[in-house]
Amino acid sequence: MESTILIKGIMTVHGKRDVLIKGERIEKIADNIDFNAQKLIDGTKKHLLPGFINMHTHAAMTLMRGIGEDMVLKEWLYKKIWPTEQKLDEELVYWGTKLACLEMIKSGTTCFNDQYWYLESAVKATAEMGLRSVQPFVILDLYDPSKFSKIKEDCFMAWEKSQSWGGANRFAIGIHSPYSVSQEMLLWGSEFARERNLLVHIHVSETEGENRDSIAKHGVSPTLYLDRCGVLGPNVIAAHCLWMDDRDIEIFSERGVKVVHNINSNLKIASGYKFRYNEFRDAGVTVTLGTDGCASSNNLDMLEAMKIAALVQKGWRGDPTALPINELLSLATENGGKALGIDTGVIREGSLADLILIDTDSYAFTPDINFLANLIYSANSSCVESVICNGQVVMEGRGVEGEREILDNVNRLYTKLL
Amino acid sequence: MESTILIKGIMTVHGKRDVLIKGERIEKIADNIDFNAQKLIDGTKKHLLPGFINMHTHAAMTLMRGIGEDMVLKEWLYKKIWPTEQKLDEELVYWGTKLACLEMIKSGTTCFNDQYWYLESAVKATAEMGLRSVQPFVILDLYDPSKFSKIKEDCFMAWEKSQSWGGANRFAIGIHSPYSVSQEMLLWGSEFARERNLLVHIHVSETEGENRDSIAKHGVSPTLYLDRCGVLGPNVIAAHCLWMDDRDIEIFSERGVKVVHNINSNLKIASGYKFRYNEFRDAGVTVTLGTDGCASSNNLDMLEAMKIAALVQKGWRGDPTALPINELLSLATENGGKALGIDTGVIREGSLADLILIDTDSYAFTPDINFLANLIYSANSSCVESVICNGQVVMEGRGVEGEREILDNVNRLYTKLL
Repeated sequence: MESTILIKGIMTVHGKRDVLIKGERIEKIADNIDFNAQKLIDGTKKHLLPGFINMHTHAAMTLMRGIGEDMVLKEWLYKKIWPTEQKLDEELVYWGTKLACLEMIKSGTTCFNDQYWYLESAVKATAEMGLRSVQPFVILDLYDPSKFSKIKEDCFMAWEKSQSWGGANRFAIGIHSPYSVSQEMLLWGSEFARERNLLVHIHVSETEGENRDSIAKHGVSPTLYLDRCGVLGPNVIAAHCLWMDDRDIEIFSERGVKVVHNINSNLKIASGYKFRYNEFRDAGVTVTLGTDGCASSNNLDMLEAMKIAALVQKGWRGDPTALPINELLSLATENGGKALGIDTGVIREGSLADLILIDTDSYAFTPDINFLANLIYSANSSCVESVICNGQVVMEGRGVEGEREILDNVNRLYTKLL
Repeated sequence: MESTILIKGIMTVHGKRDVLIKGERIEKIADNIDFNAQKLIDGTKKHLLPGFINMHTHAAMTLMRGIGEDMVLKEWLYKKIWPTEQKLDEELVYWGTKLACLEMIKSGTTCFNDQYWYLESAVKATAEMGLRSVQPFVILDLYDPSKFSKIKEDCFMAWEKSQSWGGANRFAIGIHSPYSVSQEMLLWGSEFARERNLLVHIHVSETEGENRDSIAKHGVSPTLYLDRCGVLGPNVIAAHCLWMDDRDIEIFSERGVKVVHNINSNLKIASGYKFRYNEFRDAGVTVTLGTDGCASSNNLDMLEAMKIAALVQKGWRGDPTALPINELLSLATENGGKALGIDTGVIREGSLADLILIDTDSYAFTPDINFLANLIYSANSSCVESVICNGQVVMEGRGVEGEREILDNVNRLYTKLL
């Protein structure tokens, strides 16, 4: 029998409603629903929102939270991150992903677009935590032809294994970036994805140096190079995209590429901050938000990402009307669903029941003049009171099953990385 | 008899310690203190920090949280803020200040430097909440000579009344800004403060337009104009200071003026963001942090202010080493105490017992690699578990006395402002 949840009298953008969930989906939204559900949730002093969608992260990097602070990018990568990643194993990625999921649940994220190693462990952890994700096999050859055949083989095997994943996790192809992946593997990966109708998750134009190098090596920007290789299409999700000129944006628009803005990471490792949100939006490009991994941005808090993205847009443009609150919420919710081609990020009858309940009975929501402004600019993610993902309650009253075990295991294991 | 509190086995920057508080002050810090205190606090899995010091706010503006979002400055001021402020009264400011204090306590602030109307109500509310503050009489004449004598009279009366305040609230002089206060009143206010050894709290160079206007009107920058008027001295706390050239910074350094950086407000109303932190610091100027009022920045969260200040410094300078975490903490704690001339913002035997206990048993502090990085970049202010101000517990286990009453009263009253 399908599970059923009835939320009574909760505030939505359309006013107070009852919401009935059957199985994985929202069955009905109405003024008053009379139904004997397995679970009843009281919506008093709560507001219902779609779960946030974190469109770019490296989940298990929670293990490296705080490992390299206030460092310049090269030193950070060569001395901290890469040596540390050599020490990863299945167990570490399993618990690191569990910690990431715990943090995402607690901060209201129900779906994430990942890119990391030890795929099977990451998927297992995510499934156990009850979250939705897109998990790619990562192609990263550093232009070394001796690696090609092994990567192809591993990718094929990973894809085969993914056929038995089931549940709320989807397989994808991660192509690390145009600067770290050879043209042969770029082409191969894109083709592999296209044939199987898979998403491609890639880093593009994160730093000014990357653009400079691309012009030196290929004569064109990373975007023009990727387009020349035939990589760009509506299945491509491009992270960062900080250093994009008008022509690059036009190409993204023409090819239907989706963009992920990761402001905290961009600022913290000083990659740049003048993300061209208005220009992407006006060109019809779907813009989404992400946090990046915890080695660079230290947390997976989408509410914080929304706030800082808006503040920085207003700041550098010198325009307080830039990135207004209603658009902000879309970036963190429905645009993510659109980019992933998954029916999440909205509250609509028939859609997936990926929902969060916001507790508005606190100083942060007082006075009650503007709920969205209070949510984004005043509150922090501790306002997320309960979380439903794929029709299942994964947090209720801030309690998440297995929390103690996750913290203890990570604190027991992380020293392996130091 | 003096009240006594003993905190057992709490983590500090020097390792695990016991901390004994007697009356208003820290009596002793040691490995093991045996003392039969009136109150015993278990420090297990907690970290002790000085309470944060919010160096620039307009506390009762919590009442206007969310009242004018995504608006350009002039429209915001003329259509929203100023008309709204006309409707304020003693009762509104009393409950607005209580809400502000509640929020500050919950987010770990024990002392604030205010600037707002209805001084007696603000001080009454602050004293009842148990926080420490500097509360100025505000001089704002908009260059209207007909107001001078009334302002002088009111200021004198306010000062006289303040003699009976006692407790942890101090009287000061607020001179709104060089662009909104006539030269006569600038001089009068500074003199009034100097004669009575009072602090002066003033807005300086918040916008580029302010600088342009100052040059048009006075031939010099706001800083040079204030210096020419003899206003600047070590008792002056200047908020914002976004548009300062080398000469301005040199003058602040020579005169011993203290600076308050308010990044969230600066970004949100798009006043600017290239705050010259390194240059102020290198010139020996004491730099502190503030949130500004909730009409512009929507909350009073100093932990968030610290994070965003650091991220934006790193971002616009293109330097990930800018504003490192140890300096950040000083900005929000001991530099505030130094600027106010109050022995707070430090954990030291003999200093005022303004302390916060951070709960580190959560995902945000896992793994436990770098406490300060976790605090500033990963956690949010819900990690503040207990707060002690002036030797009294004002929050324990996130519970604050009178919270329900404050929320209910603000939600009952704020509609008067709409």
